[in-house]
Amino acid sequence: MRIVQKYGGTSVGTFDRIKNVANRVHQLYKEGHEVAVVVSAMSGMTNKLISMAKEMADEPSEREMDVLVSTGEQQSIALLTMALHELGVPAVSVTGRQAGVRTKGSNTRARIEDIDPAYMNKMFTEGNVIVAAGFQGINTDGEIQTLGRGGSDLSAIALAHSVDADICQILTDVNGVYTADPRVVKNATKMDEISYEELLELASVGTKVMQSRSVEFAKKFNVPFEVRSSLNNEPGTLVTEEKPSMESVVIRGVSIERNQARVTITDIPDEPGWSGKILTALGASEVNIDMIISNIANDGKARHSFTMNSDDLGRAQAALKSVLADLPEGALETEAGIAKLSCVGIGMRSHSGVAATMFGALGEAGINIGMISTSEIKISVTVDEAQIDDAAQVVHDAFELGS
Amino acid sequence: MRIVQKYGGTSVGTFDRIKNVANRVHQLYKEGHEVAVVVSAMSGMTNKLISMAKEMADEPSEREMDVLVSTGEQQSIALLTMALHELGVPAVSVTGRQAGVRTKGSNTRARIEDIDPAYMNKMFTEGNVIVAAGFQGINTDGEIQTLGRGGSDLSAIALAHSVDADICQILTDVNGVYTADPRVVKNATKMDEISYEELLELASVGTKVMQSRSVEFAKKFNVPFEVRSSLNNEPGTLVTEEKPSMESVVIRGVSIERNQARVTITDIPDEPGWSGKILTALGASEVNIDMIISNIANDGKARHSFTMNSDDLGRAQAALKSVLADLPEGALETEAGIAKLSCVGIGMRSHSGVAATMFGALGEAGINIGMISTSEIKISVTVDEAQIDDAAQVVHDAFELGS
Repeated sequence: MRIVQKYGGTSVGTFDRIKNVANRVHQLYKEGHEVAVVVSAMSGMTNKLISMAKEMADEPSEREMDVLVSTGEQQSIALLTMALHELGVPAVSVTGRQAGVRTKGSNTRARIEDIDPAYMNKMFTEGNVIVAAGFQGINTDGEIQTLGRGGSDLSAIALAHSVDADICQILTDVNGVYTADPRVVKNATKMDEISYEELLELASVGTKVMQSRSVEFAKKFNVPFEVRSSLNNEPGTLVTEEKPSMESVVIRGVSIERNQARVTITDIPDEPGWSGKILTALGASEVNIDMIISNIANDGKARHSFTMNSDDLGRAQAALKSVLADLPEGALETEAGIAKLSCVGIGMRSHSGVAATMFGALGEAGINIGMISTSEIKISVTVDEAQIDDAAQVVHDAFELGS
Repeated sequence: MRIVQKYGGTSVGTFDRIKNVANRVHQLYKEGHEVAVVVSAMSGMTNKLISMAKEMADEPSEREMDVLVSTGEQQSIALLTMALHELGVPAVSVTGRQAGVRTKGSNTRARIEDIDPAYMNKMFTEGNVIVAAGFQGINTDGEIQTLGRGGSDLSAIALAHSVDADICQILTDVNGVYTADPRVVKNATKMDEISYEELLELASVGTKVMQSRSVEFAKKFNVPFEVRSSLNNEPGTLVTEEKPSMESVVIRGVSIERNQARVTITDIPDEPGWSGKILTALGASEVNIDMIISNIANDGKARHSFTMNSDDLGRAQAALKSVLADLPEGALETEAGIAKLSCVGIGMRSHSGVAATMFGALGEAGINIGMISTSEIKISVTVDEAQIDDAAQVVHDAFELGS
């Protein structure tokens, strides 16, 4: 098998951990696999480099930040390759450039344009384990660019695609993707598999296993990947395109998002244009809105409600002042201290009664539902933040997701 | 003017020193010059990276050492460029690769094969100060290679050549090249100019201003360069090709080398082959021989004498055991505690009496001469190490080199 593995900064955060990664790769090599390992900078290194930059300038140039910060991964790949050599494994390091990663867009948050796998394929053919720097590439001008948050996952998935790997493994400090956060729901279980789309919906509501764009890239190019632990050899969770068998599972998982707030604007005239004005004002103030609900009351006036992170509440109130000034009867209601609970599953498409089960379970537990929002494979509700853990548990139980 | 400046690790060893370099470059920029700055890694950084490698392997792969160690210069260029931006100077960093430095040969001690100045010329045309990483380049396989000791000087001189700079300035912690080591000869003076060849002879006998190969490169491609201080704005010493006017100076400078030892093999039969055997034995043991003298005594037997660093004496004695075993009457004489004094000057070619003046001055001062060796522009003698400082002073005085 041709395997691409990705180890994050914590997994290569000390010399001993680098040696541990080398041992794991050695094992795969002995089993006859072709292996490419994508690594991040040693944990703490990127922050250290950023603080060096801050000594030079309050707002260092992003081009130069990329030149500086990309040295972190370059150091990791050299060190891991040396450790592999000590175990007798033929290995070569490759920077983003050598891996053929061509980037585009702004420095510090570039996109992967394409990957030329020629050099990596040559290294495979010569029998080497490849140790590739994640998070980086070069643009068409030959300038170093980094990919921003979660960039190493993206590197791994893109490299796996370009070298036509059989599997891409994202090694992390959890055993896989769980039906719920195990710190909240004690009997949460690890999933064997999940579709890209389900993971995207779970990721967007607080289960931060991976950045959405890495999953989206995998989905776009159909790159199967596995989230698994770097601390043991247990199978993790396989993330693939949707399969017919997946529909038999009604709800894949439950996720929660704390520290939410609701803003409601009342008595909006039932005329075109108000929704646009409101959203434009919030957007201009960089308030990230999550759920959006609009209702017409009996008097024919509309009510718009939004949820957002509580930290954005002050900015949202300020942004909406000008809109309210144009609304003679309008008022602003705000509510902090709420949280969001979501059920996600592609089985929802073919199974009815999901909402009934969810709302029923919450009602039986005496948990009041605030806002409700649904998509094709997700149902989200807001509840009082103090009740969110209980809410997650009863809904998890209602769908029999526990072990 | 188009100016290439090189700053070593000490000059960029702290954040404040990097800012100081930025100020100096800012000044040149304000004066309307086109400037490219070649920098080394921050002092201590290279050693730190090497010690990280040693945590991974006793003998880390040289390919991977280059990947690791080259991050030191990459960090320096980003930081200096940020500091220049803070002063309002348009500046871009370039790695060895971006500077077009194509290398060849072994990792950790590569040679510069050629330089493609296209990207640098583009950056100049766009009005930028260029901050280039010294010490590094890439080979035709795209692999990172470093140039070994003194590599940043070599980078600067080669880049100056490739962008057709008017002058290359090597900024260092001394004011230039002196007629003698000022710590030994109190009235030593800074030279205004010196030829490549003279500097090479002085460098080879202990005045370690620059590595010989950088000077040889400058000589080969006729790149004038100036050795000057990074701590003030005084003119330094200009190193150029030989000019007719230079011949009027009989002796350019005096240099000394301490901690030398002499080995003599006596009673060598006057037959072909013995010199070869002796030198082969010493070479195989990696003993670096300096002066070589051979004489035939009255009995027709030969005596071979060599000087070397005292640290090599033990290895030399061991290496010569097998040779002595084949010499029935041969004996090995050794003498440590000697030092070498050299006078260098291209004027020597056209002026007679240089040796007479030198030996006369030493004799008057009661300093006994051991071995004597001459080349076209150099006379070297050995003296007792305890007398080397006096010897340097009296010879320096005899040629009226003092201020």
